[in-house]
Amino acid sequence: MRNILGLKCVTCGAIYSTRVPYTCLSCGITDGILDVQFDYNAIAHALTRRTFAARSERSQWRYRELLPIRTGAKLPDLSVGWTPIIPTDRLARHIGLTSLFIKDDGRNPTGSLEDRASSIAAVRCHAKRQKIIACAGNGNAAFSLAGMAASMGLRSVIFVPQCTPEAKLIQLLIFGATVVRVQGSYEDAFQLCQRSCERRGWYNRNSAINPYLVEGKKTVSFEICEQLDWQPPDWVAVPVGNGCTIAAVWKGFREMRQIGLIERTPRILGVIADSIAVGAPRNWRQAVIAVRESGGAMLNVGDNEILDAMSYTGRLSGILAESAAAASVAGLKAAVAQGIVGRRANCLAIVTGSVLKDTQSARHAVKGPFEISPDGAGIDDILTESPSQH
Amino acid sequence: MRNILGLKCVTCGAIYSTRVPYTCLSCGITDGILDVQFDYNAIAHALTRRTFAARSERSQWRYRELLPIRTGAKLPDLSVGWTPIIPTDRLARHIGLTSLFIKDDGRNPTGSLEDRASSIAAVRCHAKRQKIIACAGNGNAAFSLAGMAASMGLRSVIFVPQCTPEAKLIQLLIFGATVVRVQGSYEDAFQLCQRSCERRGWYNRNSAINPYLVEGKKTVSFEICEQLDWQPPDWVAVPVGNGCTIAAVWKGFREMRQIGLIERTPRILGVIADSIAVGAPRNWRQAVIAVRESGGAMLNVGDNEILDAMSYTGRLSGILAESAAAASVAGLKAAVAQGIVGRRANCLAIVTGSVLKDTQSARHAVKGPFEISPDGAGIDDILTESPSQH
Repeated sequence: MRNILGLKCVTCGAIYSTRVPYTCLSCGITDGILDVQFDYNAIAHALTRRTFAARSERSQWRYRELLPIRTGAKLPDLSVGWTPIIPTDRLARHIGLTSLFIKDDGRNPTGSLEDRASSIAAVRCHAKRQKIIACAGNGNAAFSLAGMAASMGLRSVIFVPQCTPEAKLIQLLIFGATVVRVQGSYEDAFQLCQRSCERRGWYNRNSAINPYLVEGKKTVSFEICEQLDWQPPDWVAVPVGNGCTIAAVWKGFREMRQIGLIERTPRILGVIADSIAVGAPRNWRQAVIAVRESGGAMLNVGDNEILDAMSYTGRLSGILAESAAAASVAGLKAAVAQGIVGRRANCLAIVTGSVLKDTQSARHAVKGPFEISPDGAGIDDILTESPSQH
Repeated sequence: MRNILGLKCVTCGAIYSTRVPYTCLSCGITDGILDVQFDYNAIAHALTRRTFAARSERSQWRYRELLPIRTGAKLPDLSVGWTPIIPTDRLARHIGLTSLFIKDDGRNPTGSLEDRASSIAAVRCHAKRQKIIACAGNGNAAFSLAGMAASMGLRSVIFVPQCTPEAKLIQLLIFGATVVRVQGSYEDAFQLCQRSCERRGWYNRNSAINPYLVEGKKTVSFEICEQLDWQPPDWVAVPVGNGCTIAAVWKGFREMRQIGLIERTPRILGVIADSIAVGAPRNWRQAVIAVRESGGAMLNVGDNEILDAMSYTGRLSGILAESAAAASVAGLKAAVAQGIVGRRANCLAIVTGSVLKDTQSARHAVKGPFEISPDGAGIDDILTESPSQH
């Protein structure tokens, strides 16, 4: 990886080579997040807008110089990234804006932005000739890891907590993942996963540990820049869970500016929802940095606002946003109402995942259906009562 | 629509202008399927491989000259078509082939090939200034119609049978569809939908009636030709339900040859599954024509073969195939075993929809998970027992 200078601890600033273990040796596993440092001068020399205009690869791999993968590394056959940006006039009006784009990362192979991270993990695991890749969890990260491993011919071992719903188990099992249900909490599953990776030499894809996942996620920002003709929006709204995604989004824009592909970076709106807030967000520090450095803002939205946003986003744009993803739209609406974001600002919300993976989560977001007898009596009343697409 | 000559009844051969109602006036609604006739000489003159190489639009609209839409018509903001073709070496080996591509139409906005048809319907509805678009059903066609209507700002009215599962209702309702649950069978829902469209002047998207849906679906074949550099495979496997999709797939390849973009058409393998076979397939005649004219074959697969295919397709390629879609892979495996398809033939299977829309349908396709206590005892046994990705 000729363009990588090393890994830098975001807490103490220590610099490491890429051969060290995953976390900072002096700060330790719970706090020592490492950040991959690229040689931006060299990259800026090689990459111009014209370089990209000439590239036919339409996936996240078109940004290979800015990714921690070797030239010629085997990549997954599934097509990751280069998801569409959708203009949404009616949705924009509804939340009080004159213009709104949605970056729909639910269109990734397993339906979420995590595919950008899991694919990097799978590529690195394969390049190191490791045969097994593991993580703990039952959400998007786990599902996307199972899919990317299947695509690369790697065995995935997924440690899920006892309480995992059947639908999530089925989804992991379709990919042939070795699903290990730990009779305990998420923390139990996480600890067992950590120990298993250390003792058995499995590749560890837990985002609390692995510094390379952010590098995959940042490609969403590269795409936003390029797909909008190198004119990024004024504001980009991102849901905040453990802080990894928002940190990655900001890193992407920062890098684009650093190598001269864009002139100014957008403000980042971090949206925190009760339902996605992680107890002690591992990347909290980086999330705050993203907001502060970008001149952005962070705000909270309630579960009802999110359910509402799932429904009006679907109805007014045809985009399927899962609850965490709908939070970014809900947050933008709140930010406009509070005057944080101006009505005429160019805004983009990142929809980080599709609700198709978890239809049940939208049950309280919708009303209906209407019941009718086969003779059709009462159909006029139904039309009067039903929601409008405007 | 300058390139359209008229509509031809596939039963009696009568020719109509595009202003007539949907079905043949002499053959009647149950048998009078109309087929859109294009002026291929004019189109062949305008469209060459070079034309396409210069087009940046990466969606089904890049084939606009071959679609029943007017120049400048408003299109949905959602990005339909141009789904990836995935090479699958391990899956190929598993079913006895040296090479296999999957055209993954589960990557469409609502997760199925039906988006190609529903988008045409929505565009035509909008162009006619009709505000309401309707269909009967609770499967992919209905779901995609709800999504495309939401994207275009049209109201969709979906007539679903009484027995519709809650998950399917929620999915339709997320898009703001007016979901009318008819206290009766699918046939009751269909009849009420027909009457409502006739009496109220709603746009009718039922594939048993509307001749334009095939025109959207055929773009999957255009893409197969172009994405494989105008060298179509020897065999293309397609699931057969009511016959509409296989007819469309064949029409697409025929048109590509007719306008000189490809030199030979692939053989079509129609795969019929118990679970997707429709009582009296409306487009049966056209399905048989597709197989016969292409020098292909039609075969049956059992439910167990399909469940099996859902599982090994996911495990060996990372592609999420719903049961109808897995039928095409299962059919190809059977065809290889029976010597219908040679082991060295270049094959492609169309995955018509993603299983994410209906995770529950895969419940019997998978085994697991493994249970373990937080101390990890027994993990070695688990690794021995679990399936391999090869």
